[in-house]
Amino acid sequence: MMRTHTCGELNLKNEGQKVSLCGWVDSKRNHGGVLFIVLRDLYGITQIVVEPSNKHFNSAENLGNEYVIKAEGTVRKRPEGNANKNIPTGEIEVYLENLEILNTSKEPAFAIAEYINVNEETRLKYRYLDIRRETMKKNLVFRSKIAQVVRNYLYSNNFNEVETPILTKSTPEGARDFLVPSRINPGKFYALPQSPQMFKQILMVSGMDRYFQLARNFRDEDLRSDRQLEHTQIDLEMSFVNERDVALIVEGMMKEVFKFAGYDIETPFMDMEYEEAMLKYGTDKPDLRYDYEIKEVTEIFKNTEFKIFRQTVESNGTIRGINAKNAHQYSRSEIDKLTETLKSNGAKGLVWLKMKDGKIDSSISKFLKEMEVESLKKSFDIKEGDTVFILSDDKKNILNYIGILRNEIIKRDQNPKKKWAFLWVRHFPLLEWKADENRYDATHNPFTAPLPEELYKLDKKEELENIKSCQYDLVLNGVELGSGSVRNHRREIQEKIFKLMGYSEKEIYEKFGMLVEALGYGAPPHGGIGIGFDRLIAVICGYDSIREVIAFPKTTSGICPMTEAPSEVGEKQLNELKIQIKK
Amino acid sequence: MMRTHTCGELNLKNEGQKVSLCGWVDSKRNHGGVLFIVLRDLYGITQIVVEPSNKHFNSAENLGNEYVIKAEGTVRKRPEGNANKNIPTGEIEVYLENLEILNTSKEPAFAIAEYINVNEETRLKYRYLDIRRETMKKNLVFRSKIAQVVRNYLYSNNFNEVETPILTKSTPEGARDFLVPSRINPGKFYALPQSPQMFKQILMVSGMDRYFQLARNFRDEDLRSDRQLEHTQIDLEMSFVNERDVALIVEGMMKEVFKFAGYDIETPFMDMEYEEAMLKYGTDKPDLRYDYEIKEVTEIFKNTEFKIFRQTVESNGTIRGINAKNAHQYSRSEIDKLTETLKSNGAKGLVWLKMKDGKIDSSISKFLKEMEVESLKKSFDIKEGDTVFILSDDKKNILNYIGILRNEIIKRDQNPKKKWAFLWVRHFPLLEWKADENRYDATHNPFTAPLPEELYKLDKKEELENIKSCQYDLVLNGVELGSGSVRNHRREIQEKIFKLMGYSEKEIYEKFGMLVEALGYGAPPHGGIGIGFDRLIAVICGYDSIREVIAFPKTTSGICPMTEAPSEVGEKQLNELKIQIKK
Repeated sequence: MMRTHTCGELNLKNEGQKVSLCGWVDSKRNHGGVLFIVLRDLYGITQIVVEPSNKHFNSAENLGNEYVIKAEGTVRKRPEGNANKNIPTGEIEVYLENLEILNTSKEPAFAIAEYINVNEETRLKYRYLDIRRETMKKNLVFRSKIAQVVRNYLYSNNFNEVETPILTKSTPEGARDFLVPSRINPGKFYALPQSPQMFKQILMVSGMDRYFQLARNFRDEDLRSDRQLEHTQIDLEMSFVNERDVALIVEGMMKEVFKFAGYDIETPFMDMEYEEAMLKYGTDKPDLRYDYEIKEVTEIFKNTEFKIFRQTVESNGTIRGINAKNAHQYSRSEIDKLTETLKSNGAKGLVWLKMKDGKIDSSISKFLKEMEVESLKKSFDIKEGDTVFILSDDKKNILNYIGILRNEIIKRDQNPKKKWAFLWVRHFPLLEWKADENRYDATHNPFTAPLPEELYKLDKKEELENIKSCQYDLVLNGVELGSGSVRNHRREIQEKIFKLMGYSEKEIYEKFGMLVEALGYGAPPHGGIGIGFDRLIAVICGYDSIREVIAFPKTTSGICPMTEAPSEVGEKQLNELKIQIKK
Repeated sequence: MMRTHTCGELNLKNEGQKVSLCGWVDSKRNHGGVLFIVLRDLYGITQIVVEPSNKHFNSAENLGNEYVIKAEGTVRKRPEGNANKNIPTGEIEVYLENLEILNTSKEPAFAIAEYINVNEETRLKYRYLDIRRETMKKNLVFRSKIAQVVRNYLYSNNFNEVETPILTKSTPEGARDFLVPSRINPGKFYALPQSPQMFKQILMVSGMDRYFQLARNFRDEDLRSDRQLEHTQIDLEMSFVNERDVALIVEGMMKEVFKFAGYDIETPFMDMEYEEAMLKYGTDKPDLRYDYEIKEVTEIFKNTEFKIFRQTVESNGTIRGINAKNAHQYSRSEIDKLTETLKSNGAKGLVWLKMKDGKIDSSISKFLKEMEVESLKKSFDIKEGDTVFILSDDKKNILNYIGILRNEIIKRDQNPKKKWAFLWVRHFPLLEWKADENRYDATHNPFTAPLPEELYKLDKKEELENIKSCQYDLVLNGVELGSGSVRNHRREIQEKIFKLMGYSEKEIYEKFGMLVEALGYGAPPHGGIGIGFDRLIAVICGYDSIREVIAFPKTTSGICPMTEAPSEVGEKQLNELKIQIKK
């Protein structure tokens, strides 16, 4: 054994013990001729003391930062006044008796310290230095532990982890599949899975009852900060369940996860119909840490002199607004910026009201009648210092704009009422019309079942866009964490839905053949969910970018600066695969 | 909740309870007008009773096998004499009160029964039916549970699970890499990892201290029964360790795994130098469940009249044999077959001796002198009924032949002395000469360190093939379960080894750049191992083929009969990826 202890565990109880520590030279300083080395490993830091009389003094003095050493010595109490109560090993130091240099180090590209700002490209190129920093180390350890919390919870609820293939068939949303040429079957390709969806449903047909997997999913799409070409999903599926059974399992899992992270969250989670979410918050993933409810005030403006609003009323549109309260003081220029944001997203304009010294000021003051002001004060519950924003448009378009407005207001409010606001958004529409493809498409997942009471609508053309489904999203603080549904377990209904989506028999066979076929052999009712694991960890740790919680992520150009993947490959290799690059 | 219980849990304690069960109709029979339905799920079977007076009798009578139903009713004790003590639910039955048909089923392609023999192609095509069978179900559940045993053990030993990329760079043994064209970076390719080797070493350089992952590895090779294009590996790496530290962790893990499987295995495992294994057993993965030691008998034949042996002695060759004992009676035709097997592998011939009625009979009887027979009897400890086989060749070639001979003898012996024979084979040669490539290559892994005491040989050209390394294999019952080593943590030594392997500076940079670079920034001494998870499960369950313990394996042609992967893809998709198929 090279070491008797790690650098994070020695304390006064070890006083007098001979120990052997291994780690990295974090720093060293010479204090009145005595050398103090801070030795670092994953678990912490320990101070090593080298007296000038020590035969290793010279070697010790020449140690560079990030050198790897083995230090043997005796644990002793730090002298009075030198203890550091902030770290677990702060009351002791190790009096060096033997020193072995295990490896040297070049000058690191950046210092291994938290406070040093380094651009992300450099951090990723030298990820092995970046991970030595406290925060990245903690993120990865935390991620590892949460994975185990999730697994233990699911195992204790009778789930079995089943590994599904990564080399599989190009399927449903094929366009974003990564392809892998097959050498043994020239001209043919495997595809990397966008999710184990069909396999997990097949496992339910197989009678596996409850399946889960921390599954790697792949999607060849243009990247955003919260996306990667490959990402990890807590993927689960259960037989003989309804929506609530799946929700119960997920809520129990989140309770465990957040307990481990130090938070006691309340279950059951809030629950909202998709329609209600859109109406109330203008988005299917409202951030409910904040109130900021959307109010409809069309009625107040029915006789308004403000032309735009009057037109809205006359054209059967809608006027809605939000009281941003006094959480933030909106200057004129800030309101202009907000207006710009909304306009650039397609809104026609933004009306504001403020109450200052008991008086209402507004961008449309000159059009506002006393009675209208009173009604607005009442409707929005306007108090001293509050700012209210109002938008108008037709009933469909306004949803998006008012959702954006609400998010902008939230961005400026740093005092959420709740730390963690979980929400189930349920009963998404089953189908939506894709004008450009001239066909219906599944809003989320082509395998989602309609609500049983809405099944009859599958036969009514005019009702197709109104079919509510068993599709549910899990939302946390305005972030979509996961998406799932109860699936079609009856073959004839699944086939009917595929046909409504414009697939021919042949296409159904080619794209979904194995699943449709399997449903014909006694598929049980089943449902499940996929929860973004990277995103879950990022949200808990407070990051916008999931790259902060992935050991070796790719940049937004899909490049790994450390390995330099993707790279060119030899002609010989391409020949073996019977493919060539198109000029 | 659709069900109150599973089909595996009701017993006399539940007598009188109203229950609701869901599952598949395993079978039904009409016994004197009363209908008995065996309902099956993952957890077991339960008998449902339907009286002729029951309003659901007709529906029940028309249920097909594999229909999915929900049965509500009351638990009652089976009538005297009808109990089945062999199953947990065998003392009760459920008296049907309500029946709901959740799904119908086509006639399955094969019956869901253990004893039905089905060819593998059909099993894989209808894997969802195959997995409903008891054995496959058990295999997958067992695999899932072992995965968790492994993880719990490693977590409790301070390992962190870190996910490494699946889209990475084509590296070392590039020729067998799967390639993935990058759409965002046209003309460039990702590669699927053959193992996370470089990433796990990078994690050690990152200070992660102890890493593990149940990692998916990919290798585009021609398949054998124990190989798949993708397979799962228990991959681990540790910092500040020597060979024995890694062995201790692995032995502890195996102890836990086998305890879960119901076996108490002994640790530490046996331990053998590579050289000794080759000499004693003619293979680097001897099956030590059986004795069958290889004896050198060259000395006995130094004056033989048998020409072939005399030539062997004269040309400084070696004569070795094995006493196959009386574990199996070798007929003449069987010995002929054995001889054929050896000859087809390159051996020159096979000599046999038998003792029957106290007398020695042999294929070379007429050449054997009395004294030689006596010496052979003594050397091989020949007893009544024993058969001895003897081979001769030069000292290098014989290793392979005698290894094959020993395996053939073992195949015919159905009574191993031990159930589980673990073995560490250690100190493989660091380098071997590849005549066809005119260069040295790593015998196992280019990152393996030489034994510290052999380091000096790196500078002696004539010693290069004699350098012993810190490479170890874990062998169980003659199967190589895993392979690992202590790695080169010093950059200059790693570079020296790459150069000995004939790589130029440029090639080193291209192939191993990130790792070599990382070693320069304070890499700690580290080592690890990768253990084939599919193979481990297969060996414990007693299978030769790992396909029996994989949910959705591919055939030996790399095809998935269920999904029909790999498949042709559209011109549009290839265009987007800027590749085309070569005619």
